[in-house]
Amino acid sequence: MKEAYLDNSATTAVCPEAAERAAKLMLCCYGNPSSLHRLGAAAQRELDTARAEVARLIGVRPETLIFTSGGTEANNLALFGAAAARRRAGKRIVTTAVEHASVAAACEELERQGYEVVRLKPDADGRIEAEQLEQACTADTILCSVMMVNNETGAIFPVRELAAAARRRAPEVLFHCDAVQAAGKLALHAGRLDVDLMTLSGHKLHAPKGVGALYIRKGARLLPRTFGGGQERGLRPGTEPVPLIAAFGAAAAALPPPQEQARHYETLRRYLLEGLKDRNDVVWHLPANAAPYIVNLSVPGIRSETMLHFLAERGVYISSGSACSKGKRSPVLTAMGLPPAEIDSALRISFSRYNTKEDIDRLIRGITAGAEALVRA
Amino acid sequence: MKEAYLDNSATTAVCPEAAERAAKLMLCCYGNPSSLHRLGAAAQRELDTARAEVARLIGVRPETLIFTSGGTEANNLALFGAAAARRRAGKRIVTTAVEHASVAAACEELERQGYEVVRLKPDADGRIEAEQLEQACTADTILCSVMMVNNETGAIFPVRELAAAARRRAPEVLFHCDAVQAAGKLALHAGRLDVDLMTLSGHKLHAPKGVGALYIRKGARLLPRTFGGGQERGLRPGTEPVPLIAAFGAAAAALPPPQEQARHYETLRRYLLEGLKDRNDVVWHLPANAAPYIVNLSVPGIRSETMLHFLAERGVYISSGSACSKGKRSPVLTAMGLPPAEIDSALRISFSRYNTKEDIDRLIRGITAGAEALVRA
Repeated sequence: MKEAYLDNSATTAVCPEAAERAAKLMLCCYGNPSSLHRLGAAAQRELDTARAEVARLIGVRPETLIFTSGGTEANNLALFGAAAARRRAGKRIVTTAVEHASVAAACEELERQGYEVVRLKPDADGRIEAEQLEQACTADTILCSVMMVNNETGAIFPVRELAAAARRRAPEVLFHCDAVQAAGKLALHAGRLDVDLMTLSGHKLHAPKGVGALYIRKGARLLPRTFGGGQERGLRPGTEPVPLIAAFGAAAAALPPPQEQARHYETLRRYLLEGLKDRNDVVWHLPANAAPYIVNLSVPGIRSETMLHFLAERGVYISSGSACSKGKRSPVLTAMGLPPAEIDSALRISFSRYNTKEDIDRLIRGITAGAEALVRA
Repeated sequence: MKEAYLDNSATTAVCPEAAERAAKLMLCCYGNPSSLHRLGAAAQRELDTARAEVARLIGVRPETLIFTSGGTEANNLALFGAAAARRRAGKRIVTTAVEHASVAAACEELERQGYEVVRLKPDADGRIEAEQLEQACTADTILCSVMMVNNETGAIFPVRELAAAARRRAPEVLFHCDAVQAAGKLALHAGRLDVDLMTLSGHKLHAPKGVGALYIRKGARLLPRTFGGGQERGLRPGTEPVPLIAAFGAAAAALPPPQEQARHYETLRRYLLEGLKDRNDVVWHLPANAAPYIVNLSVPGIRSETMLHFLAERGVYISSGSACSKGKRSPVLTAMGLPPAEIDSALRISFSRYNTKEDIDRLIRGITAGAEALVRA
């Protein structure tokens, strides 16, 4: 059976370029970058190459990136590191009600530690406006954290306008952007967005799982969370996983230009919408400004998991929302004010550059068959 | 030129079994273990297999292990997680003056946070005695952290006796053992050692860099350091790096029995000592009870780095001490009270099961040539 993997916002297949580089480095260039001998230096060079390759993705200088074990660690380091560094300046943190669990749960912990967290809610269209953020920011707001692309709806937040709004009220604020669902697909430029911190994850862009990065604008100060041998400027000690980091670089370098990817995703999305347009039992959740590679829809009356398993049996893989909130009702769709029947039947379809119209055909056939077979169940 | 890699305490080459499993999973079984569909379940099964394989190394049940990004993260989680969980019971922590940087630096941070840290010094023979620890422990000692094998000298600490001594004074103490330099080489049994927490690192036993594990005895409570999607029982959230973890399992399963390894290492060590026994300019640092795969020696008058580069040019790779303390004077040899001339010329040779007598021949020739060529330089 030919399969259609349409769950690329959960994780992606490793691209051949990345897999090959990882495999090569595991066996050949296995030195510890901290070792003073030649094998150490060779490993260090691999790190330098990869750092430049990943930095290019978001238009920054290589030395502003530190590698982490993934998006969760990078988000945690950004939030706790910034909050601790700026503790004396204030306790207020502004974020949204629709962040990824690794930002949302870190904010809950910061509240337990005595910080004050304000969570902006998107409107029914998935939008968050600069005025909302400006009103929420006070002069003693030390940190803002807003994602670039929502992982469940694909909503693109106006990060540049949001950062500017935050700075009008709190000029010293550290502005963090979780760009995990954007990097490698949308054109991104951390400098033009004027953010201080930006999180990237390797496995969302065809690198292996277990590696991510945090951009730290020159001059932005974080306190470390982990202590040890001083690697990654003391902010992320531990022997650098050279094969993983190098694979992250290879995956970044292998990505087609964002414009080319956008055309591909838009074609797939249009094809999907067209293919299901006659079904009155499908409700679309399409934010006004959405990334074209995430599509969220509901078939009210059929629980997400039921449809998901029905599709998986037919070799079509999608998700019910964030893979990370396994089993819990989506806080993102709840924050958007969707009716419970739509939330409980929500399906997230997410594309990669490897998807084809044939994958969408399989999905359309699957949803159509599922909607008919399962509705009375 | 044939090379001799004798720096296996810094890092090891990935074994073919681990590299193969990682490569396969990167390309084929790339699901997110949290995904509800079949690809997610397949990834979850790989985690389960690997957890059992790694657990077997230290004789524990799979569900007592959580995977981390490496030894540094596991040590940090053990120390900060235990200290935070037991904060109300006391503030005293007992450790040694010769721990790895990821324990030593975490303890310094705990001091800044108001904990009291007592550091036991080994004697000139590298020994730490149970009485020393017992005297240092008070009833309000909440945490002890003692490594199994010292990474610079190979000294084996009597962890079972130390844990028993600690419990006599502080029955509720959490006893942590950094077993990074022991696991996979020595026979280890966390239950018989009676420790609550034990740190393992993949890349010291021929798994790829970027993965480690923390054993947490059933009932031992830690507070999390990282917040997110709830993976690894909420103690280590973030998408699990399935290919890495699976490779860790494969590497663990591929290890020869400890007895067989010990014979091999003892043969190599004897051969090395024999080969250099006539050189009066070599000073050996051989603790009374030492792991046979780490040998520390000095050639006073020749700086470690000078000898290291001399050897590296001849394809022989060793280190000047811990790779993680790049450039700094060894705190381990300092704590043992060695004269500065010996510390500054210290060399660490560390074996893996792939080393041969020919590797030792190359090393002996290199040190002999270096001692003669460099001594007047």
